[in-house]
Amino acid sequence: MMTKVLSGAGLRGQSAGQTALCSVGKAAAGLTYRGYDIDVLADKASFEEVAYLLLYGDLPTRQQLTQYEAKLLSLRPLPETLKQALELIPKDAHPMDVMRTGCSVLGNLEPESPLNDQQDVADRLVATLPAMVLYWYRFSHDGVRVDTTNTGVASLAGHFLTMLKDTAPSDLEVQVMNASLILYAEHEFNASTFTARVCASTLSDMHSCITGGIGSLRGHLHGGANEAAMDMIEPWQTADQAEAGLMTKLLNKETIMGFGHAIYRERDPRNDVIKQWAKKLSDEVGDTYLYAVSERCEDVMWREKKLFCNADFFHASAYRFMGIPTKLFTPIFVCARVTGWAAHVMEQRANNRIIRPSADYIGPDHTGWIDIDQRS
Amino acid sequence: MMTKVLSGAGLRGQSAGQTALCSVGKAAAGLTYRGYDIDVLADKASFEEVAYLLLYGDLPTRQQLTQYEAKLLSLRPLPETLKQALELIPKDAHPMDVMRTGCSVLGNLEPESPLNDQQDVADRLVATLPAMVLYWYRFSHDGVRVDTTNTGVASLAGHFLTMLKDTAPSDLEVQVMNASLILYAEHEFNASTFTARVCASTLSDMHSCITGGIGSLRGHLHGGANEAAMDMIEPWQTADQAEAGLMTKLLNKETIMGFGHAIYRERDPRNDVIKQWAKKLSDEVGDTYLYAVSERCEDVMWREKKLFCNADFFHASAYRFMGIPTKLFTPIFVCARVTGWAAHVMEQRANNRIIRPSADYIGPDHTGWIDIDQRS
Ligand SMILES: CC(C)(COP(=O)(O)OP(=O)(O)OC[C@H]1O[C@@H](n2cnc3c(N)ncnc32)[C@H](O)[C@@H]1OP(=O)(O)O)[C@@H](O)C(=O)NCCC(=O)NCCS
Ligand SMILES: CC(C)(COP(=O)(O)OP(=O)(O)OC[C@H]1O[C@@H](n2cnc3c(N)ncnc32)[C@H](O)[C@@H]1OP(=O)(O)O)[C@@H](O)C(=O)NCCC(=O)NCCS
Repeated sequence: MMTKVLSGAGLRGQSAGQTALCSVGKAAAGLTYRGYDIDVLADKASFEEVAYLLLYGDLPTRQQLTQYEAKLLSLRPLPETLKQALELIPKDAHPMDVMRTGCSVLGNLEPESPLNDQQDVADRLVATLPAMVLYWYRFSHDGVRVDTTNTGVASLAGHFLTMLKDTAPSDLEVQVMNASLILYAEHEFNASTFTARVCASTLSDMHSCITGGIGSLRGHLHGGANEAAMDMIEPWQTADQAEAGLMTKLLNKETIMGFGHAIYRERDPRNDVIKQWAKKLSDEVGDTYLYAVSERCEDVMWREKKLFCNADFFHASAYRFMGIPTKLFTPIFVCARVTGWAAHVMEQRANNRIIRPSADYIGPDHTGWIDIDQRS
Repeated sequence: MMTKVLSGAGLRGQSAGQTALCSVGKAAAGLTYRGYDIDVLADKASFEEVAYLLLYGDLPTRQQLTQYEAKLLSLRPLPETLKQALELIPKDAHPMDVMRTGCSVLGNLEPESPLNDQQDVADRLVATLPAMVLYWYRFSHDGVRVDTTNTGVASLAGHFLTMLKDTAPSDLEVQVMNASLILYAEHEFNASTFTARVCASTLSDMHSCITGGIGSLRGHLHGGANEAAMDMIEPWQTADQAEAGLMTKLLNKETIMGFGHAIYRERDPRNDVIKQWAKKLSDEVGDTYLYAVSERCEDVMWREKKLFCNADFFHASAYRFMGIPTKLFTPIFVCARVTGWAAHVMEQRANNRIIRPSADYIGPDHTGWIDIDQRS
């Protein structure tokens, strides 16, 4: 038995277990995946390398990476039945609902089993989630049955952008998407990962765990914040307009999406990386105001509330500069975070006890029964 | 700040929040829903009354109950698109995967919104989940498109059994199914409910929360235990065979499904109720051994390990006596627990902070980057 300080609601500041996958908030602002600093990974690695690191335990050798890339490539095609299910979903559906459904359907068609074990299921999901959302998106919006194989495009970053636009993305776009996927890949016991671990702790299957993770990521306080941030800054045409708009929101005590964090106290290390890429893209596309609007928001929030941008805020403008529709922002997060979720599921299973907390009862007590005709 | 004792893994014995919905384990073996004792509810109430109690805050008056039953009846028909999606799922799929998918698909077709608010979504799920699993089951197994409306059958208990068998169930069967749904309706911060609350805490939608709950309930350490218990006792033809088989399992240090509990220390109050019904059914169907086998398991487990039957153990034989296929056991649990899940989602939302614990980092530290050709 050990004694812990319970710092309040939401299990904030309480340890819910151990992990060798990620450290968050060391020295108030650090982030490592299996001990590797996020800055170094985002700078030097490919997303496939990071996926391998998370899912297989260490950085791959050249041969391992080549094999892993080939495996992911071979796993890209969607089953016909899954495509049929995706074609049933209406155009106005929420893309996160589509991904949650796609993942769940796949669990019916290719359930986890000794012959389709947790590593294979995880790799299959990494390989197919981008196509699940884009097959539906292109079919429902453009009437196009997109090629989900894209054998000519090696990286998942390029694969995503190619399915979205039918044309080859620029090198810079692939580079940014690659870094973005790395930044979003893993983040310790965040709410969606914790969801996946609670699910895993009942000894449920991998598809259930990932489906649950997608559902949790959808919320605006979590992954949905990148879309909510875009919706907020979209109408502002100048930095001054942004400042005025933001001040009004603060006066109304609104929550400002893309700011603040449950663990980091000084800054979110992912922001530095994505902000630089947003700047580069802004220059490349000749943006005259969106980057400036975003930077002003950052300044105002720090000045007024000592709140800093989290990973989501500059992702909004970066994705916009790449021509990605807002409602596909959080789905990209899923394509990345599935690696972290699956790694956590495996870690939970390796040393499991069912996650079943208690609660403080604050309701009434009744003695006996009240007949239905005596109730008021 | 308050100090809490962390009693081990799985957040066991730690409070993760407050609830007015349920108390578990008072005096080591009690269970109340909104302050009403489970024994009284299972004895006197209908499942619809209990659903109303959980979802609307108090026991209904006669008028409220009549209106609520009419509402649930009117909400039974499945959308055509959902039926099409269910028809795509193969016969050998896991019924819990089917329900997880059905719930997720419904979220695409009828998303939560101001016009389709949390109460309406919850009621719709209560009304449709039985049909989701049985429409698929009867279609894939018997080639029959079952009537999901069943206007002549008032209770959900009767509706479930009628869709399953096409013939009217006996009064006793409806009575047992009703009690079973009540016993399974709610259980505080169990793993699936906690999953739903974590999801709700990100401000995600109701369908995501319930989909996540279904995924967690599927595990053998949780709702899946009633099916696992049936699989265990199925081969035993006499009580002596059961005793011998169980002793072997205990010698091999196997986990015995349907026994033990994370919170209760002396007994599970739900067992007393379902055991009585299992006995009545055993007498009615002229069973010569399954009830005796089950009772012997109970005796042996108490004698050898001081472990008692939880809610799941006698549910196995009770459901078998009603002719319910084993793989539909846990889906019935879903049809009941959706009421508790939805009530917890609303409670979480009413006083929310994102559920985001921390973790103890036990992994390595690396300084710097290792070039791919230097890795071993
Ligand atoms: C991330 C978040 C959910 C963390 O929640 P948390 O751990 O409960 O937040 P904190 O305890 O750090 O909040 C401290 C105070 O700052 C306020 N605050 C935090 N983030 C805020 C924001 N983005 N806008 C306005 N106020 C904020 C809180 O309301 C709280 O004020 P209070 O003490 O008066 O209630 C929260 O910062 C937030 O809602 N951010 C916006 C959503 C977002 O960007 N999510 C993505 C996270 S990667
Ligand atoms: C319900 C359950 C998951 C609770 O888990 P828990 O809180 O971690 O269990 P406890 O801390 O009470 O277990 C205490 C000891 O009894 C053992 N034990 C508990 N339930 C057992 C069972 N069903 N069979 C054999 N041993 C069991 C545990 O292994 C543990 O032994 P250890 O100290 O040597 O590790 C667990 O009892 C279990 O796995 N039961 C079988 C599955 C089941 O019926 N689930 C439905 C629950 S409603």
